[in-house]
Amino acid sequence: MRGFSQSITFLRESPTRRIDAIRERLRRERRDIINLSAGQPGIPPPIEIRSLLAKQLIEESGMELYGYTPSQGVLELREAISEDLKRLGGIDVNPDNIVVIAGGQEGMFATFMTILNPGDEVILLDPTYFGYKPIIEYFGGRVRRLYLSMDDGFRVDIEKLKELVTNKTKALVLVSPDNPTGNIIDRETARAIADLAVDKDFWIVSDEAYRTLIYEGEHTYIYRYAPDHVISINTFSKDPGIPGWRLGFIYGPSNAIPKLKLAAEEMTYCPPVFAQRFVAAYLRSEVRMRHLKYIIDEYRSRRDAVVKALREYLPESRFIVPRGSMFVFVDLSKYIRDSERFAEALLERYGVTVIPGTYFSDVYRSAIRISFVVESIDRLQLGVERINRAINDLRGSL
Amino acid sequence: MRGFSQSITFLRESPTRRIDAIRERLRRERRDIINLSAGQPGIPPPIEIRSLLAKQLIEESGMELYGYTPSQGVLELREAISEDLKRLGGIDVNPDNIVVIAGGQEGMFATFMTILNPGDEVILLDPTYFGYKPIIEYFGGRVRRLYLSMDDGFRVDIEKLKELVTNKTKALVLVSPDNPTGNIIDRETARAIADLAVDKDFWIVSDEAYRTLIYEGEHTYIYRYAPDHVISINTFSKDPGIPGWRLGFIYGPSNAIPKLKLAAEEMTYCPPVFAQRFVAAYLRSEVRMRHLKYIIDEYRSRRDAVVKALREYLPESRFIVPRGSMFVFVDLSKYIRDSERFAEALLERYGVTVIPGTYFSDVYRSAIRISFVVESIDRLQLGVERINRAINDLRGSL
Repeated sequence: MRGFSQSITFLRESPTRRIDAIRERLRRERRDIINLSAGQPGIPPPIEIRSLLAKQLIEESGMELYGYTPSQGVLELREAISEDLKRLGGIDVNPDNIVVIAGGQEGMFATFMTILNPGDEVILLDPTYFGYKPIIEYFGGRVRRLYLSMDDGFRVDIEKLKELVTNKTKALVLVSPDNPTGNIIDRETARAIADLAVDKDFWIVSDEAYRTLIYEGEHTYIYRYAPDHVISINTFSKDPGIPGWRLGFIYGPSNAIPKLKLAAEEMTYCPPVFAQRFVAAYLRSEVRMRHLKYIIDEYRSRRDAVVKALREYLPESRFIVPRGSMFVFVDLSKYIRDSERFAEALLERYGVTVIPGTYFSDVYRSAIRISFVVESIDRLQLGVERINRAINDLRGSL
Repeated sequence: MRGFSQSITFLRESPTRRIDAIRERLRRERRDIINLSAGQPGIPPPIEIRSLLAKQLIEESGMELYGYTPSQGVLELREAISEDLKRLGGIDVNPDNIVVIAGGQEGMFATFMTILNPGDEVILLDPTYFGYKPIIEYFGGRVRRLYLSMDDGFRVDIEKLKELVTNKTKALVLVSPDNPTGNIIDRETARAIADLAVDKDFWIVSDEAYRTLIYEGEHTYIYRYAPDHVISINTFSKDPGIPGWRLGFIYGPSNAIPKLKLAAEEMTYCPPVFAQRFVAAYLRSEVRMRHLKYIIDEYRSRRDAVVKALREYLPESRFIVPRGSMFVFVDLSKYIRDSERFAEALLERYGVTVIPGTYFSDVYRSAIRISFVVESIDRLQLGVERINRAINDLRGSL
């Protein structure tokens, strides 16, 4: 009998795709749209590495630049990643403990494909990235929420976390720097979470997509504190900025690696070789640290511009100034209630895209996520001005 | 409690990876290895399109060449694919019914993720490509085998097929041109299979990876005969020859498309944009038909050389001259019994890689798959000579 899988009903289109679709329509109508919703960077990868690859693309007539690679990724790239983790984070990760993947999304899917059995519980923070829930539920897992509060800077309260842990707890997902809040877990909290994971024997799925986009403070590599309990998911989408080329990596303990590799191999056979070549050259080039400094400086000044504009135009909004990532998570509960209806009206009538807080949180339903990495400083200000105008016009009705 | 998924034990490393690993070791020892095991082409993609992309890579400083695309693939590529299917196959497939994927492997995984429920039965031909069984079993499906015989050219006997169909039959997998036999389903058989699928209401998963690599005769697009029952899996790995860039496409009926798209989106978010740009340019370029003719002529002459060498050096071997694909499936039962032990000895002692028949068949356990698209004609002949030598040396012992 034809028909479809029942479990696939747990999967839903990424909610940002809906905003993308409306934006596309308005763009075709030649409306001026200010993009404050982007989940990808606005600065392209460095020209030096692009030129290098362009040359290889013309000159190489063997199959090495076009053919399959080992499913775990080419050794040269895994070595370059290992060196980079040492240089930036001071941690020792053996290239054998790294699996190169076709982007962070594949890392998320492969990780839960590897660890979850039906009935397992997974703890998610709230707010957090919306990509985890459907994957966890697809594999038969149950989501438990640890609610964080803007009032204390989205701090993870270890006592409250302990209360959520049961004998069915399989994993805790930690996104730091966080999407949407830009919050960074401090060292003490990371260590306390690691201790708890070891004590209660659950996985920490550590999403470190934004680990190099830090504006103040530093990124904590939680793997350091619980190497046998951490599976770390990473991407090259944000730095060097090739989201559409689909490349990232996972690292974790030796017992997990063969399974993660198999999961990825079954999904995509091997990661894209052109992207692997590109990133291996990038990580080992003198361009690497310079490009990183350039994008951090640039994104920091854009963040500062958004923060300034928010304080000026939306004085009753509440937010934590993000020390990392690409986003400000702005609570508009003094102005509006329903962030989904607000985001749609804002886009249709005022030409500004933001992501509603409901996508990230059961609690912050009047918040919006503002991305500051795509538009220029002038247009970021204009965007916040338009949000102010929308609020003034719509205030009573939403 | 930490630990791993139980279902992931159904996944095993691709068996060809084992041969790859031995080959890599011998290569590091500077042994001369003749590669008759390759699952990827030996001719790189056309220089004209590579030059075009190299230019764009240097010049484009917006995010379009680096950023995410719609998860279904960029419209321009889907339109180009639709035109190409019309031109080569005479079939009308709406761009909306095409999902661009990160390679054929993702197409296979997404397809069974979309259609299978535990307990469903899937009919596989024997011999056939070894990649399907682990995926089907991972999703809880049960494999039923339809055994084909070299004696009648691996013909699909419709009456025997009917006997295998039960009320649990969810799908039949059809690989044509076939890997490993190079066999092509003829029009009458395709129509009879399609009629049966409609009558008994099961899916035909039509793997058309080698559809453009046809040396005599023509490829039958089975979608034509049962458009509501066919999910067709395709790749750009063989033509234009970018296996490591991970790009392919699926097409099927409108009720399946949103689910296939979601499955792929959940695994990799979107297909690699660089590869999408490349293939869109290729399919719409005047280079396309010229390059296709070039690789077909080249591979045909290599196939002819292998066939000639087999007749000369291994006169008691049996095989069907392949009319498509990249392989000859050679039954060596007059010479040897255990193709796995033979393949390993052949590689270790004689420096020739082939894939054992056991990977494709429960029946043809003394066969080997010879790939003729990577090595030159001289080296193909030398490879067959070495197989002859190995057989003479090892004959009694294997």
